[in-house]
Amino acid sequence: MAITLVINPGSSSKKYTLASDGRPLATFRFERNEQSYEICREHNGAEQKCEGVTVEMYRSALAHVLHVATTEGLVAKDTDVVRVGVRVVAPGTYFQAHRIVDSGYIAALEKRTAVAPLHIPHTLAELVEVKRLLPHALVIGVSDSEFHKTMPPEAREYAIEATDTTDYDLYRFGYHGLSYASLARQLPTLLRGHASKVIACHIGSGMSMCALRAGESIDTTMGFGPGSGLMMGARVGDIEPAVLLELMRIHQMQPLDMQTYLQTRGGFVGQTGESDFRHLLARYDTGEAEVVAAFRQCVYRFQKTLGSYIAALGGLDAIVLTATAAERSPRLRELLLGGLEHFGVLLDEDRNEMTVSRDGIISATASPVMVAVVRTNEFNEILTVTHNFTE
Amino acid sequence: MAITLVINPGSSSKKYTLASDGRPLATFRFERNEQSYEICREHNGAEQKCEGVTVEMYRSALAHVLHVATTEGLVAKDTDVVRVGVRVVAPGTYFQAHRIVDSGYIAALEKRTAVAPLHIPHTLAELVEVKRLLPHALVIGVSDSEFHKTMPPEAREYAIEATDTTDYDLYRFGYHGLSYASLARQLPTLLRGHASKVIACHIGSGMSMCALRAGESIDTTMGFGPGSGLMMGARVGDIEPAVLLELMRIHQMQPLDMQTYLQTRGGFVGQTGESDFRHLLARYDTGEAEVVAAFRQCVYRFQKTLGSYIAALGGLDAIVLTATAAERSPRLRELLLGGLEHFGVLLDEDRNEMTVSRDGIISATASPVMVAVVRTNEFNEILTVTHNFTE
Repeated sequence: MAITLVINPGSSSKKYTLASDGRPLATFRFERNEQSYEICREHNGAEQKCEGVTVEMYRSALAHVLHVATTEGLVAKDTDVVRVGVRVVAPGTYFQAHRIVDSGYIAALEKRTAVAPLHIPHTLAELVEVKRLLPHALVIGVSDSEFHKTMPPEAREYAIEATDTTDYDLYRFGYHGLSYASLARQLPTLLRGHASKVIACHIGSGMSMCALRAGESIDTTMGFGPGSGLMMGARVGDIEPAVLLELMRIHQMQPLDMQTYLQTRGGFVGQTGESDFRHLLARYDTGEAEVVAAFRQCVYRFQKTLGSYIAALGGLDAIVLTATAAERSPRLRELLLGGLEHFGVLLDEDRNEMTVSRDGIISATASPVMVAVVRTNEFNEILTVTHNFTE
Repeated sequence: MAITLVINPGSSSKKYTLASDGRPLATFRFERNEQSYEICREHNGAEQKCEGVTVEMYRSALAHVLHVATTEGLVAKDTDVVRVGVRVVAPGTYFQAHRIVDSGYIAALEKRTAVAPLHIPHTLAELVEVKRLLPHALVIGVSDSEFHKTMPPEAREYAIEATDTTDYDLYRFGYHGLSYASLARQLPTLLRGHASKVIACHIGSGMSMCALRAGESIDTTMGFGPGSGLMMGARVGDIEPAVLLELMRIHQMQPLDMQTYLQTRGGFVGQTGESDFRHLLARYDTGEAEVVAAFRQCVYRFQKTLGSYIAALGGLDAIVLTATAAERSPRLRELLLGGLEHFGVLLDEDRNEMTVSRDGIISATASPVMVAVVRTNEFNEILTVTHNFTE
């Protein structure tokens, strides 16, 4: 039995999928909410069962997964797991490639911890655990930035001192790369080959946008870190340097405090107290002033970014929306893409309403720009990279 | 004799113009370059004479101006100067209006010094000197942000905690407002009334862009401070928060150090060692790699911003370029606006070549979007505000 394990570690959840012959056998999702922890289970795509777990079980999630898998006979013994693919979100040219996780990789990630102290420690802990529990497996660090390595210098570089750029590896790496890679794989079929200028939007709890020319990323809103770009659920996104420095001065914040503020107290949370789009849209529809104002800012920034990517691409053939919030909510899509007739974007109200949690074209037949909803499949992407990896 | 004095203080130069009946009598410009200081003189628009001065004379520039003016009989006595208009660049809702400079105004500006320590002290020193030497004059603080007070909340606010926005007055105020006000005054004639969606670009040593709907600012690239937005001669412009915090961490910089870095070591200076567009364009045309790369980034960011303002305006009727670099250089305009045919922007090569240091339309007759060069007149704008000011 040759089993592949796919691990997608996040800061508030982590997901483990065992797969054989390219198909998932079982998925275990560990969630952390405030003080409670739970594990949810999928089996051959069947519905989920969730149960509370202790913090210790959350921390030793992989051991628990392997224990259940062997007990249930999904895996005969641990050494059947021959390959492990772990999604890695880390700034750095080194991490903008899929790589074998060895001691050098782990050391490189440790050195990067200070740069992204909110994210990297989780990934690092996971990788150490994988190497400890599955010493015989080939472990692949699957880069969430690799897809953006095609970005040209004018999009990849900052207007800072040239020596700072090169000496400290300060580039715009971009994230949500596995999601965009999954979309790019589906684009030729979806758009029947005749769309070379596409703007893809990943709209979940994290939000980003990517300009694709002939299927390759030429720009994206996340840069050195995953907190930048669009206004998000809890993230400020791009913010003017002068006001960031003024906030640090006022509150006597150090860079790390500021990083936490930017990631957790901005966006919809900072303005309305919450980040869940389902609740926010319900409050929006009651006309609650602060929520309406927050959406107005979110949509304004989203549409300005869209305009900037039309400039970058020199035109626009299609817009593709993906990730949970965009896949589920016709209302949100209508807000984000309404009033863009001057760019040739005409939504079809019925098609938009009918497209919920499935793929579909939501633009009008006469719309010069095609608009489609496409479900992203990060799992498949990680699995494919892990399977196909050769040195 | 009722004389008005217009003062335009900068960080490396300051300009004094005496005017009577709306016409300039004489202009004195003080320049600071590294360790040398000079004063240049215009008289009734005639050519300039420059001579070196001491640092003391640079500091007491106003006393020198008044001395020369009375000696030459331009002004009979100091009390003939009945109104003084001083351009003020300062963040704050209070400073987003033209106001009489009294002790309350000066106290408010002093309180703001820590926010913009590179700029406010110069203005403050100037205002104190004006009040001391011309105690009888009505002194008006002419706001460089006032023009942008029409910006809607979605363009004026940041996605930070709502209480930080209101408690600390952290808004996008915008600058170059006197320049844009001067343009807006000229637009109806220039565009024969039928252009309601205009993007104006101020391109000098500072660079900014402004989206105008029916002559009113709805968005601009400079925000809380004047260092943000476009990539400039020596300024970084907008930069991702994560990389700014990383630079502070690497170099152990405090917010003030970082502010200095962003204002003086970024943009073209950071990448090529210089900021003068005349020299830069000459180096560009020899194909010097680092200069070509810097222009590519500058143009890319400029065009993306233009695209974002087309989204904000819901279309585009005209682009207006102003300020020294744009007024003088057809080559620079060609770089900034080339390749935008998909937005309906078609330059006419001959018209562009012929329009140097004068107003003119530089788009092709068939261009859906009109492109014009219009010389800005900040002096006239400050004078008009100062003359017309009533409480």
